[in-house]
Amino acid sequence: MTHWDEDKRARPLVGQYIETLKPYVPGKPIEELRRERGIQGEILKLASNENPLGPSPLALEAARAALLEGHLYPDGAAFVLRNRLSEYLGVDMARIVSGNGSNELLELIVRTFATSADHAIVSEHSFIVYRIILKSMNVPFTVVPAAADMGHDLVAMARAARSNTRLVFVANPNNPTGTYNGRAELEAMLSILAERPDPPLVVMDEAYFEFADAEDYPDSSRYQGLYPRIVALRTFSKCYGMASFRVGYAVATEEVAGYLHRVRAPFNTNRIGQLAAAAAVDDEDFLRRTLELNRVERARVSAALSDMGLEVVPTQANFVLCRTPLLASDLYDKLLDRGIIVRPLDGYALDHHVRISFGTPPQNNRLIEALREVLSP
Amino acid sequence: MTHWDEDKRARPLVGQYIETLKPYVPGKPIEELRRERGIQGEILKLASNENPLGPSPLALEAARAALLEGHLYPDGAAFVLRNRLSEYLGVDMARIVSGNGSNELLELIVRTFATSADHAIVSEHSFIVYRIILKSMNVPFTVVPAAADMGHDLVAMARAARSNTRLVFVANPNNPTGTYNGRAELEAMLSILAERPDPPLVVMDEAYFEFADAEDYPDSSRYQGLYPRIVALRTFSKCYGMASFRVGYAVATEEVAGYLHRVRAPFNTNRIGQLAAAAAVDDEDFLRRTLELNRVERARVSAALSDMGLEVVPTQANFVLCRTPLLASDLYDKLLDRGIIVRPLDGYALDHHVRISFGTPPQNNRLIEALREVLSP
Repeated sequence: MTHWDEDKRARPLVGQYIETLKPYVPGKPIEELRRERGIQGEILKLASNENPLGPSPLALEAARAALLEGHLYPDGAAFVLRNRLSEYLGVDMARIVSGNGSNELLELIVRTFATSADHAIVSEHSFIVYRIILKSMNVPFTVVPAAADMGHDLVAMARAARSNTRLVFVANPNNPTGTYNGRAELEAMLSILAERPDPPLVVMDEAYFEFADAEDYPDSSRYQGLYPRIVALRTFSKCYGMASFRVGYAVATEEVAGYLHRVRAPFNTNRIGQLAAAAAVDDEDFLRRTLELNRVERARVSAALSDMGLEVVPTQANFVLCRTPLLASDLYDKLLDRGIIVRPLDGYALDHHVRISFGTPPQNNRLIEALREVLSP
Repeated sequence: MTHWDEDKRARPLVGQYIETLKPYVPGKPIEELRRERGIQGEILKLASNENPLGPSPLALEAARAALLEGHLYPDGAAFVLRNRLSEYLGVDMARIVSGNGSNELLELIVRTFATSADHAIVSEHSFIVYRIILKSMNVPFTVVPAAADMGHDLVAMARAARSNTRLVFVANPNNPTGTYNGRAELEAMLSILAERPDPPLVVMDEAYFEFADAEDYPDSSRYQGLYPRIVALRTFSKCYGMASFRVGYAVATEEVAGYLHRVRAPFNTNRIGQLAAAAAVDDEDFLRRTLELNRVERARVSAALSDMGLEVVPTQANFVLCRTPLLASDLYDKLLDRGIIVRPLDGYALDHHVRISFGTPPQNNRLIEALREVLSP
């Protein structure tokens, strides 16, 4: 008979870095709000930067066809998807790695290129997942204070590099601020880093790439000639409306991509997502409609929020960060009562900020009206 | 202008453990064989233990409905799936963790519970992915020689534990051998391990659980009372025909599951897979047909291969391992010419062994005929 005595255990089950890890808190799912508050009417979720037009129709068509062969393993090499992306981006297939959302690629990059003896750099107010992943793998990191616009200060980040800095994370545009860094600033950062004996890998998280239209917005998939240790991360979750499928990709040098391929799980990207994403690349009409809607509504909603007296951070993404006179958690709660889910940023130590995704014009009107009610004295 | 001098680099991009890592080689995809050899007729793939009946019809129906909300993020908590599994298994939801295939759960377990200062134990001839993951995370491991039947020697594995052994991997039934370990042997192993000051986590990979019908085959999701540090891993890839969806799950104590939830990515399981898998649990008819087909064909194909003079390893899974007089790579190649893909096991240091998945009766007849041709003197 097996004898188990918990009190005799000499060592805790996990290290302190995992014991104290606080997981990511996602936007509240619609079903959860309905269960919790018994809300009857239509619930409006503007909390996860999802595409208000739904998924790409060409992606859906390809997904339906793929279901019929649902019993087959994915192609481990994701040939169809990487081949299509290779043509679309004009980049050799060997330089592309697909992942289970760009989130998996972030994890894979940390696992592949850093250990607990190394060091990483992130920015204040940047996507919190970088810090969670680094902590979960016990990689120490420095948080560099944000610039005056709440975005990244790339030169300060470059100057914070130490002899063992292996990774620098840049979200461009950044989530949750919507801010961006231009070409000149990116190049200044890379110039400083290139002088180091061991230049760190610069991870450019471009989940909102397609929404950015600033004239000097840099495409980091074009910078490998200048600075070989730069990786661009993209996703099908946002502009192609495919968050449920979990498909992201990395563009890097063949060397960096080769190591990621070596370490990734053999079937890390599901087959339905691979084939749907490959079809989405051809859905130019859907992408055009998505970007046009966002361009118009971004300007209109930002102006309406400003008119209400909220401090709005200028955004290059499909969401906006604003500072409210109420506590973020209070504003969030009052909007929940009205069936609207936004994202309070207490988790980012921004107690008076909420992030709001842009919806369709009627959805945005409903949000603006609800906000007027909630904020009226 | 940025200046990049590759020769000045003081340190290689990755550690030696990644530089020397050999990734998993999956079964050859059908499309790849067609591209490579220009084969016109129907290609028969018996190389990845996929379900010859295709995907569960109830899963497909749920997947089609889920596609319409393809733009939404998955529920990070996978409520619908874990709730359904909780009822089905009679296990509290807090003890269940879903993953991007059970492969992701293997990675997650190593990341969560081991570091490069620890140690792991695997068996000779066991699923090679354990070793690849351990090596990719620089966790040292011991390979314990197999038992006489080519399966795991659980008592020898328990005796190989060191003071820093944190993980023991057991595949039951094992891939690629099809062998299994019975209740008495599992309990003997757990008794030895429970006496250690730091009993390791025993990872029971039960990807082929449903196919096993030996009377003394143990259900490791029932052993947490006896030995709290045991985890059962299951998958929807095989018996529900859902390999393309990437959904697996772990059953553990609430404590162990809690740490895995803490470390996993927020959206690690795609939404289509979550909802399709939840529906598959109800597809009793499909599961029954799958298991019945396998039971009959397992006996018939095993007998036919024996009759041909091949040494067949008795199997509890949906595939069979056999030793051939030809080199495995030669037999594989000759079958490829006939449009049939099997799995040569040179990668497992079994140069004369191939693994063959069971198909439908006509598929198995085609395989048997082709083998007769290839092996005839």
